[in-house]
Amino acid sequence: MTVCNTSAPHDGDKPDPKDPTACQSTPSWLSLVQRALHRNRSHPASRYLQLATVDAQGSPHNRTLVFRGFLPSTQQLRLATDSRSEKLEQIQHSSQAEICWYFTKTREQFRITGSIQPITANHPGRAEQAQRQQLWQELSSSGKLLWYWPQPKTEQADMSLYPQQLPDTANQPPETFVLLLLTPTAVDHLQLQGDGLYPQCRQLYWLKQGQWQTLKVNP
Amino acid sequence: MTVCNTSAPHDGDKPDPKDPTACQSTPSWLSLVQRALHRNRSHPASRYLQLATVDAQGSPHNRTLVFRGFLPSTQQLRLATDSRSEKLEQIQHSSQAEICWYFTKTREQFRITGSIQPITANHPGRAEQAQRQQLWQELSSSGKLLWYWPQPKTEQADMSLYPQQLPDTANQPPETFVLLLLTPTAVDHLQLQGDGLYPQCRQLYWLKQGQWQTLKVNP
Repeated sequence: MTVCNTSAPHDGDKPDPKDPTACQSTPSWLSLVQRALHRNRSHPASRYLQLATVDAQGSPHNRTLVFRGFLPSTQQLRLATDSRSEKLEQIQHSSQAEICWYFTKTREQFRITGSIQPITANHPGRAEQAQRQQLWQELSSSGKLLWYWPQPKTEQADMSLYPQQLPDTANQPPETFVLLLLTPTAVDHLQLQGDGLYPQCRQLYWLKQGQWQTLKVNP
Repeated sequence: MTVCNTSAPHDGDKPDPKDPTACQSTPSWLSLVQRALHRNRSHPASRYLQLATVDAQGSPHNRTLVFRGFLPSTQQLRLATDSRSEKLEQIQHSSQAEICWYFTKTREQFRITGSIQPITANHPGRAEQAQRQQLWQELSSSGKLLWYWPQPKTEQADMSLYPQQLPDTANQPPETFVLLLLTPTAVDHLQLQGDGLYPQCRQLYWLKQGQWQTLKVNP
């Protein structure tokens, strides 16, 4: 799966590497997400998104996560979680998820629907373990510390149980560290600012037989 | 149901009306939401929240909505939607919902779990219709226009079908205007900035036999 794999074929011209949309006549949703990340880069919270999942009783759950970049050469979003979190339990029960990602500065929203694959410490795949390790290495020391905190969502533990610094073993990801890979199957892009003609613009993207389809719709 | 209805009894002193937390020794989640709204009031997007619902196939959905205030004298959150939207269909199938509300400036998140009651144009309740009408009156003219746009999520209609101004009938809410009332049953408050002792603070609130319970937990 490549960045330019959309239903609208590009015109065959050599793409301009400075233009993220140049590789195709209709920019893919991925280019648009990258453009939004770039345009909103002055806001650190623009890397925060909301992930909805469903529990075993069929009830929805929703929380903020940090976007950890796309898995290189794919359209998969990287997220991280703790193996002791309820969200992992929910994802193991049902992999279906929807991200809502609102960019404040450019006033646009991406709703990204797909399935999530959790890469836990005991995932058998060698490539997947390398991806898990790669993300761990990318985290800051203070970012890594969270995975050594006491059991989430149980009664607040004594402060002494929150380590101040990383253990010597932290060159490897701890058992609690889980990489989540969300593979999109549909994207819904809403621009509240409009395009000068329409008051708001909304465009849908969805996978059909491995190809991205797209349609402009009413908001 | 009143603002001060928590499990932690207040000390019996007369509350200071200037202090939103004064009516009880442990401030309720509602006071904390109001405090967050106040502290983040310079950011217009702090009134945007993400609402997760579930469709008839059990898949989660997630989108940004504008918080329209609490229904007076209650803990119910007011939201608005279009009767032609998929979210109304989902809510009519399953009323369970979870809001994720992240405040950028104060770096805190509220996850508000509850059930949603839709107040549509043909809801039989007189009080509910008054509430629906009340919210409609509070919207700006440009805000009201959205409910006169063409059918959402169908192929983009001609620009001429997006009205530039309100019809004469707009003193009453149109058929498409739906008030959503979310009644919380649990709230999960996370403060990323911590309290000077703990690196982050997380407190749960949940209803038990009509009384709000609360517990500090690990993030």
